[in-house]
Amino acid sequence: MDIKQYMNDLGRKARAASRILNRAETADKNNALLAIADALEAKRELLKSENAKDLSAGKASGLDAAMLDRLALTDDGINGMAEGIRQIAALADPVGEIADMKYVPSGIQIGKMRVPLGVVGIIYESRPNVTADAAALCLKSGNAAVLRGGKEAIHSNKAIARCIHDGLRKVGLPEALVQVLETTDRAAVSEMITMPAYIDVIIPRGGKGLIEAISNGASVPVIKHLDGICHIYIDDQADIEKALRVAFNSKTQRYGTCNTLENLLVAEGIAEQVLPELCGMYQEKGVELRGCETTRNVVAGLNAATDEDWDTEYLAPILSIKVVKDLDEAIEFINEHSSGHTESIITENYTRARRFLREIDSSSVMINASTRFADGFEYGLGAEIGISTDKFHARGPVGLEGLTSQKYVVLGDGHIRN
Amino acid sequence: MDIKQYMNDLGRKARAASRILNRAETADKNNALLAIADALEAKRELLKSENAKDLSAGKASGLDAAMLDRLALTDDGINGMAEGIRQIAALADPVGEIADMKYVPSGIQIGKMRVPLGVVGIIYESRPNVTADAAALCLKSGNAAVLRGGKEAIHSNKAIARCIHDGLRKVGLPEALVQVLETTDRAAVSEMITMPAYIDVIIPRGGKGLIEAISNGASVPVIKHLDGICHIYIDDQADIEKALRVAFNSKTQRYGTCNTLENLLVAEGIAEQVLPELCGMYQEKGVELRGCETTRNVVAGLNAATDEDWDTEYLAPILSIKVVKDLDEAIEFINEHSSGHTESIITENYTRARRFLREIDSSSVMINASTRFADGFEYGLGAEIGISTDKFHARGPVGLEGLTSQKYVVLGDGHIRN
Repeated sequence: MDIKQYMNDLGRKARAASRILNRAETADKNNALLAIADALEAKRELLKSENAKDLSAGKASGLDAAMLDRLALTDDGINGMAEGIRQIAALADPVGEIADMKYVPSGIQIGKMRVPLGVVGIIYESRPNVTADAAALCLKSGNAAVLRGGKEAIHSNKAIARCIHDGLRKVGLPEALVQVLETTDRAAVSEMITMPAYIDVIIPRGGKGLIEAISNGASVPVIKHLDGICHIYIDDQADIEKALRVAFNSKTQRYGTCNTLENLLVAEGIAEQVLPELCGMYQEKGVELRGCETTRNVVAGLNAATDEDWDTEYLAPILSIKVVKDLDEAIEFINEHSSGHTESIITENYTRARRFLREIDSSSVMINASTRFADGFEYGLGAEIGISTDKFHARGPVGLEGLTSQKYVVLGDGHIRN
Repeated sequence: MDIKQYMNDLGRKARAASRILNRAETADKNNALLAIADALEAKRELLKSENAKDLSAGKASGLDAAMLDRLALTDDGINGMAEGIRQIAALADPVGEIADMKYVPSGIQIGKMRVPLGVVGIIYESRPNVTADAAALCLKSGNAAVLRGGKEAIHSNKAIARCIHDGLRKVGLPEALVQVLETTDRAAVSEMITMPAYIDVIIPRGGKGLIEAISNGASVPVIKHLDGICHIYIDDQADIEKALRVAFNSKTQRYGTCNTLENLLVAEGIAEQVLPELCGMYQEKGVELRGCETTRNVVAGLNAATDEDWDTEYLAPILSIKVVKDLDEAIEFINEHSSGHTESIITENYTRARRFLREIDSSSVMINASTRFADGFEYGLGAEIGISTDKFHARGPVGLEGLTSQKYVVLGDGHIRN
């Protein structure tokens, strides 16, 4: 297979299909999504038998139990994919919305219309449900999708693509709107991330290694999601009950997510009131605590936090705790060690809350709320294709709007410029 | 000079200064801008004597008259720079604006706060006034600026930087907020466009060659402005008087600007009513017309347009004219040949106007208005740092808002995720 030629053809077809989708009405897009959901349920046996090929190949090549679990397509998983697509069909169409229409002194009227980006490339690892989910988000936002899943899920992904094509055909939309790469050759990824004529944005979903490699090699813009090293700062004017509740939830509600608390900062004026009880709650839950010197003076028996700990996303029941002098030290520490994902202050003090909101440079900045809320569904976006830790284009949870852009529309009545 | 070390130090200083600016109040930023404007006027003689060094070096190295004209800093030019900065001081501060604040079912309240990008790198050619203009836009939008002007303007740019530093010092803001590169070594540009840790976006201003070279080499996001190959489509339901007026103005109001009309499309049903008079108007103004075969059948004596003409940004009194069958052919032609800058339809037909707005994939799409309106000042942005022909982040005229991003703010009252 000539990879360069293959990707070029695929890109050209995606671009042509995206132009057709840009003209499609909202009802056509929704009907396509509903037809895709139906096809996934109707082809349940095919999906499971193709998935079985991936699972047995995975077992043979020594994938661990967690990887095999992510790879498996169960009946529940198939129902979940179909349900997720129906939910996306029910969301408002972002495309075509005209905002901020106003007259200017020359007499023309100017506004902004929301439009699709065009073609979205998504590169992901083993979960086959991403194929359905990502395709549905792209279709709803008016974009063609080029999907490159993990090698270990290739049979499952191709089977899901067949269901998607069934749905598209049913409503008369081109199958090329959703193309799953037929090859798992890495050279295809290199082509995919360097064809700006055909692909408008790349979204990598997976581990840090994957995302860094793609960002470094891409000439197409990338919406990337690197670490989530999230902080909570408990101010000395915090409500202690809220502090305990929010700090505990932020760490323990789930350990493996990017919005989980990793570094807890506590103002020295409140450390003795908060830390003994809070540390006890964490320890009872099985969280390993690593403290700065002051923390260990307040609560005996904790491990010492090293310099490395403050810059580590554990994704595990481990928490680093530091006592800081005041808000200034907290802000400085956070802007140095945070990955720019999510930080929260616990305080009843108006001025400090206001300063925290303004001065913390992260994609989500919170007052008296759990970092675990940083998520497209919790924010009411209705869906999420990733969480951007970049500042450019999209920041924080990325829903349908992050897959669109805005063009200017100008209405005149024969107006000319003098 | 160790260029790598020099750029690294400069980048680090810019990043540190940007954090201080992010905390500055609107009045401090405005006072800094007013102080800079005053300093430019007060140091008028220094600016002219430093500019004279550039001009004589330019003459010695054989710059042409147009280049020397762009390089010259006259009294009027200095007054204009100062006035431009005072106008930027008078604009509303985009930073800190909170929008779309709403409650979601979990009880938390979510909105978006507009924040600076951080550090903006600008790479430009001979006009020294860009130094003052770009620095002012960056300061107002809360960003530090790293400025790399043309080699031929180095003395002028450094003198302008001294005035900017005077103004910053006066209000107690760090001079490192605006740094003009001391070197014109190209290696410094290579460093500048590949240091994402210190620079958040690069804006190249200049010819297509400069912009392409920078886009290809950059690992930092680029807001780029390539060609302006703008179209007008005169529909067969156009008001003829409006068609003549708008098509004439779009080409002839200025020839050298990116929003100038380059390709005129005319529906065959109205060609005989429009083309003879319109071509006469253009010819009287001295515009060279190049037509398709049908155009030349309607108006005798025109040159033939070649395939290359449809893809050329003339920036000159030359216009290509094509007769098309209908709106479908016009849309197809435009989406193939346009550079995605600005297109306008002349029609009284509601349905066709609505289709044109939706289906043309350009940064500005107009109805019955001159393409010459596509400009940040005309759109009421109050300023313009460029016109983006990209879809990502900023599209069309880029004002202060294009130099900012939005972060999520979440307000709770001890809320946790279940």
